[in-house]
Amino acid sequence: MKSLSVLIFLGLATVAQAQQRARELGIKMGVLPTGALNAITDVEGVKVGQITLLEGENVRTGVTAILPHSGNIFQQKVPAAIYIGNGFGKLAGYSQVEELGSLETPIVLTNTLSVPVASDALIDWTLGQAGNENVRSVNPVVGETNDGYLNDIRSRYVKKEHVLNALAQAVGGAVQEGNVGAGTGTVSFGWKGGIGTSSRKLPQKLGGYTIGVLVQTNFGGVLKIDGVPVGEELGQYAFKEALDKSSDGSCMMVVATDAPLDARNLKRLAKRVLLGLAQTGGIAANGSGDYVIAFSTANRILHETPQATYGATYLHNDYTSPLFMAAIEATEEAIVNSLMMAKTSSGTQGHKIEELPKDKVLELMERYGRLKK
Amino acid sequence: MKSLSVLIFLGLATVAQAQQRARELGIKMGVLPTGALNAITDVEGVKVGQITLLEGENVRTGVTAILPHSGNIFQQKVPAAIYIGNGFGKLAGYSQVEELGSLETPIVLTNTLSVPVASDALIDWTLGQAGNENVRSVNPVVGETNDGYLNDIRSRYVKKEHVLNALAQAVGGAVQEGNVGAGTGTVSFGWKGGIGTSSRKLPQKLGGYTIGVLVQTNFGGVLKIDGVPVGEELGQYAFKEALDKSSDGSCMMVVATDAPLDARNLKRLAKRVLLGLAQTGGIAANGSGDYVIAFSTANRILHETPQATYGATYLHNDYTSPLFMAAIEATEEAIVNSLMMAKTSSGTQGHKIEELPKDKVLELMERYGRLKK
Amino acid sequence: MKSLSVLIFLGLATVAQAQQRARELGIKMGVLPTGALNAITDVEGVKVGQITLLEGENVRTGVTAILPHSGNIFQQKVPAAIYIGNGFGKLAGYSQVEELGSLETPIVLTNTLSVPVASDALIDWTLGQAGNENVRSVNPVVGETNDGYLNDIRSRYVKKEHVLNALAQAVGGAVQEGNVGAGTGTVSFGWKGGIGTSSRKLPQKLGGYTIGVLVQTNFGGVLKIDGVPVGEELGQYAFKEALDKSSDGSCMMVVATDAPLDARNLKRLAKRVLLGLAQTGGIAANGSGDYVIAFSTANRILHETPQATYGATYLHNDYTSPLFMAAIEATEEAIVNSLMMAKTSSGTQGHKIEELPKDKVLELMERYGRLKK
Amino acid sequence: MKSLSVLIFLGLATVAQAQQRARELGIKMGVLPTGALNAITDVEGVKVGQITLLEGENVRTGVTAILPHSGNIFQQKVPAAIYIGNGFGKLAGYSQVEELGSLETPIVLTNTLSVPVASDALIDWTLGQAGNENVRSVNPVVGETNDGYLNDIRSRYVKKEHVLNALAQAVGGAVQEGNVGAGTGTVSFGWKGGIGTSSRKLPQKLGGYTIGVLVQTNFGGVLKIDGVPVGEELGQYAFKEALDKSSDGSCMMVVATDAPLDARNLKRLAKRVLLGLAQTGGIAANGSGDYVIAFSTANRILHETPQATYGATYLHNDYTSPLFMAAIEATEEAIVNSLMMAKTSSGTQGHKIEELPKDKVLELMERYGRLKK
Repeated sequence: MKSLSVLIFLGLATVAQAQQRARELGIKMGVLPTGALNAITDVEGVKVGQITLLEGENVRTGVTAILPHSGNIFQQKVPAAIYIGNGFGKLAGYSQVEELGSLETPIVLTNTLSVPVASDALIDWTLGQAGNENVRSVNPVVGETNDGYLNDIRSRYVKKEHVLNALAQAVGGAVQEGNVGAGTGTVSFGWKGGIGTSSRKLPQKLGGYTIGVLVQTNFGGVLKIDGVPVGEELGQYAFKEALDKSSDGSCMMVVATDAPLDARNLKRLAKRVLLGLAQTGGIAANGSGDYVIAFSTANRILHETPQATYGATYLHNDYTSPLFMAAIEATEEAIVNSLMMAKTSSGTQGHKIEELPKDKVLELMERYGRLKK
Repeated sequence: MKSLSVLIFLGLATVAQAQQRARELGIKMGVLPTGALNAITDVEGVKVGQITLLEGENVRTGVTAILPHSGNIFQQKVPAAIYIGNGFGKLAGYSQVEELGSLETPIVLTNTLSVPVASDALIDWTLGQAGNENVRSVNPVVGETNDGYLNDIRSRYVKKEHVLNALAQAVGGAVQEGNVGAGTGTVSFGWKGGIGTSSRKLPQKLGGYTIGVLVQTNFGGVLKIDGVPVGEELGQYAFKEALDKSSDGSCMMVVATDAPLDARNLKRLAKRVLLGLAQTGGIAANGSGDYVIAFSTANRILHETPQATYGATYLHNDYTSPLFMAAIEATEEAIVNSLMMAKTSSGTQGHKIEELPKDKVLELMERYGRLKK
Repeated sequence: MKSLSVLIFLGLATVAQAQQRARELGIKMGVLPTGALNAITDVEGVKVGQITLLEGENVRTGVTAILPHSGNIFQQKVPAAIYIGNGFGKLAGYSQVEELGSLETPIVLTNTLSVPVASDALIDWTLGQAGNENVRSVNPVVGETNDGYLNDIRSRYVKKEHVLNALAQAVGGAVQEGNVGAGTGTVSFGWKGGIGTSSRKLPQKLGGYTIGVLVQTNFGGVLKIDGVPVGEELGQYAFKEALDKSSDGSCMMVVATDAPLDARNLKRLAKRVLLGLAQTGGIAANGSGDYVIAFSTANRILHETPQATYGATYLHNDYTSPLFMAAIEATEEAIVNSLMMAKTSSGTQGHKIEELPKDKVLELMERYGRLKK
Repeated sequence: MKSLSVLIFLGLATVAQAQQRARELGIKMGVLPTGALNAITDVEGVKVGQITLLEGENVRTGVTAILPHSGNIFQQKVPAAIYIGNGFGKLAGYSQVEELGSLETPIVLTNTLSVPVASDALIDWTLGQAGNENVRSVNPVVGETNDGYLNDIRSRYVKKEHVLNALAQAVGGAVQEGNVGAGTGTVSFGWKGGIGTSSRKLPQKLGGYTIGVLVQTNFGGVLKIDGVPVGEELGQYAFKEALDKSSDGSCMMVVATDAPLDARNLKRLAKRVLLGLAQTGGIAANGSGDYVIAFSTANRILHETPQATYGATYLHNDYTSPLFMAAIEATEEAIVNSLMMAKTSSGTQGHKIEELPKDKVLELMERYGRLKK
């Protein structure tokens, strides 16, 4: 484990290099302004922690944790909902979130076969927190995509300590993207995918709320960036030659907001995130696990409820549409960021996945009139 | 009623003019080939009938009927499913289609407040068919969008005979688009919407199946055509200035295929249709009723079942993804066709909705490198 | 129509005779106390109106309307949810209630083929109310069961005025049961079914809330009354001799409460109503449309929402279980009441359905130790 | 671990004593005949394996595994569906079963906090099978109830080897019930719960199919046995004195059949199992995780699908109702068996749960005329 720890550090170091986010390169998707960081962490209180496992030629995986707030999440749950775009996946925690309308652990993303260990780690983490001494039931929420092309996934390199470390290291501020955390070994549209994030801050006239999205991209289709047919132009897209599997693989999406949405409207918000995925040319292929987890930081649902009723402030249905639009835009941009920030990676069995050829992409964006400088 | 009948004729005549479909103008969305007609009627056996009600300044509505086959649909049901993108709408027939996995009437589209009369007409039509003398239960499937901006919707101009006429006139072949049938009074992205259709024919290597889509567009967001930011460029999109209602209104979508999908995979297909809507910049706003009805013509589910079991041939899950991609592409194009074929219309209370300014659109398509001639 | 009106009156008169409710006969289901009326109208503000159509040998149908409050329901909607136990039915209004979490019209129950006319009537009623002059979208909620064995259902005797009359006559207080309103021609467990109602009032220690249930029974299985195997003992139950259709037919269930439940918890409440149906030996057969509509009178959802947010008081999840138990008990009793209050009826094509033989039932209850006097 | 192994054996030995099943005692629920074993294993090919962990005062838990067939389940999946009665629980595997309509691992039941380890074990088991050398994605299906009252659940005593042993030991034939496997530490209706099973064999005229149910009971309400108000009579039921938690806790239900149901009809079958739970007085309380997993052994869904389509034989909707009735009956009896076969158990923190007082129960059954000898 120790050697891995060292490599985790190297992994992070490697990822931290020269890639640039879409917006820095002049690719500005949508009509709404971003938050200050253009990240899920623009939603106040949200923290992200990532552990990258990258060693030898076989280990290309990791953990990305999203915390809705810094308190005891089990005792102070947040309203939440989950939308299943395509359920070919192993998400843990679905039914309880849907039934009770709340999230009681951080959200952890990892690889497909490491959902159990990550769930177990979230149980450890929750049981071990001060104030949870009598807790005997925990609903860990863990999402995944399958990084088995670059990562020797059958060996299940993710261990409890990696998950606990990701949780411990979670911070606000800028979020690392690309080949990092749960995105270390993922592939998207035939290029290297990874972690991406983006946000929108609604103007005051539309409510002033913030929407942040974080994605783990491992899916495909016919890539578009801000409407430009990048996949077609670069000659790489699903089913070009045959019934390939390039569009399988999954996309995990997390959407956070400070708008006071109840679970029902969070579910509706989550559904719109798939529309953002669609903007990038995603098709929610048969073999893709496309899940959206939505939560709001505006209200707390207390675990201990000595009184039968609670008072809360919620957003009317009539005011949700701008949030829907913001979620779509932020999702599109988060997915594009995951691709822009990812780097070429080789992995297990001599497999190698190229990063998106940024020069060519920028040329295309220019040619199609989509660079805004 | 008679005067209306006359005007129906005039209405149809008016619509049949000079507009051109997207593809004729060089706007070629997606990577898959279309069917021969680029219409839902490319799926063999599918028929469409439309009645346009257009009179004075108040009547701007109509009926569009889609028949899965020419036989007795009640006795020979087809596998079907319905996906609710956003349920702010009055679709009739949802639960039985979902429970039994089959469709037993044609699909009728009309305006919001005319769902009851159209349902009643479908009951009449079904009860009256030879072979249905003992039928005492019918599940009419009727979708709607709200054309109340141009149409004096509260007066409920649609009558049973209009629906029965639409059913009686249904034919294969090319489908009228734009201000016709249930699209007569609709508005989309702030421009005149209407009926649109498109299809895809998978290459043999991907199964060779046909997917056809028909839409009734009355929704909004930030219009994109083949990725080009038309809404932004023309300065007209949702929430540009304030929390407007321009994105409300609904989109009814019907997807047909000759692929042998069971109800479960038809539901999955229906979900992808929303991804096509997303490609056009739709946001499935709070006030939009976005429904997708999917059916397959490949199998029949008999009403009379003297034997307990039936043998059938179905498509494996693994072969569905190209169909998903085809549905996304055809939906995008059907929506764009509805806008390209619509014409400026005035209506009740002096309201007027401009058609999409095709010249400007084509300029934009050119400027953004998206015209393919 | 006039003659019908007369017969409506006669119909009501006929029904008002000597039948007794289960509890009056010493059959006391469950452990929780009833409300004062043991009816859905124990939930303050709830009103019920019924029109019975009974004429000659062919007309055996009617309308039952439930109003959540006496104000303008469209302008002051109530939180609501719908659970589909088995979706072989034609319920109108499902998706919008589910999407928006609210009910904006009264609930109308009638026969299967009269859903459209009842929907149309609810639109009329809503458009015509003071304050609704600009309303152009209405979501009528109409449930049904198929009374086609006793009623010449294909003739669709229910007219708009019947529905409007049911709405106009709605009152609080005791509710007529048995062969009345939408229960005039229904059949349940092979005996005459009809309308039934019951309620529970939770003790203060459990919240003090009231739960009321109203049912339209037209379904089957193996009848149990308070656990006593009445169906077996009387030799009449589903599939006794062959694959009969006696269990088909539908059960519409409405559950109202003054507990401050949001739409999510109302959905959960609605699901429990099916457990009450199960207590009576119902099996939710393939051909049964078993729907539950739940609403709460504790909060109003305003149609006009000048402010983005609203404050509300809701019940914590942790306090819902007694409400669930109350709903189960009240449903069981409402169904039994519908059978106890129904009377033998002949109808179309010489069909005749016997009422439950109350003497034998009471003997059985006695023999099985279930009479509590 | 070794000492545990010894105690596992002792545990099994202890359980194997003198308890009798309901039917052996003359309690004969329902109208349909049972299968030969009156167990889920009456469905040909179904196997059950159980490991009981019982040591000192703290360990009261275990594992119950259900295998749909003896082949490679991953390569030869079975049609399946999952119904969520109440989602307060941690079931693993839900979304993929629902999306793809198939089950690709055995079903494992255990305690709440051991779902991750059991999932991990199922992955091990699957990856390790001959023919699965290239498998990189597995959807383990693991259900749970919370045995934390008798079992020191926070210590998570279940280890991978226990799960693998349960899988390895799985056999056809009679199934142990009561305090065994995943039912070792459960509590139901305030008495000792556990594992229970039952089956129904439809007469040939109704199709001749077999339905088997296995339950892990840890829930509550107001206990009824074959309609007799046992809970009331014994003075022990939910909310008798206050808002207690006696009805929380969960019930996992597995229903197997050899009827050729597709995933849609399996979902419908699963929903009826809740109606069986209702017959016992269960209320699906807020804190209960009530899940039903249904599968059919009549068809196989191959993992490798070189051809696009498959031919299959399925049951028509019209023939499903007797299966629904059978599932309800078998569920009721399986739950009662779990209680009848359970024995008084003490556990962690000095907690003790009495078994159902069978003598008194039989007296009651006699008094209420329900003993059939």
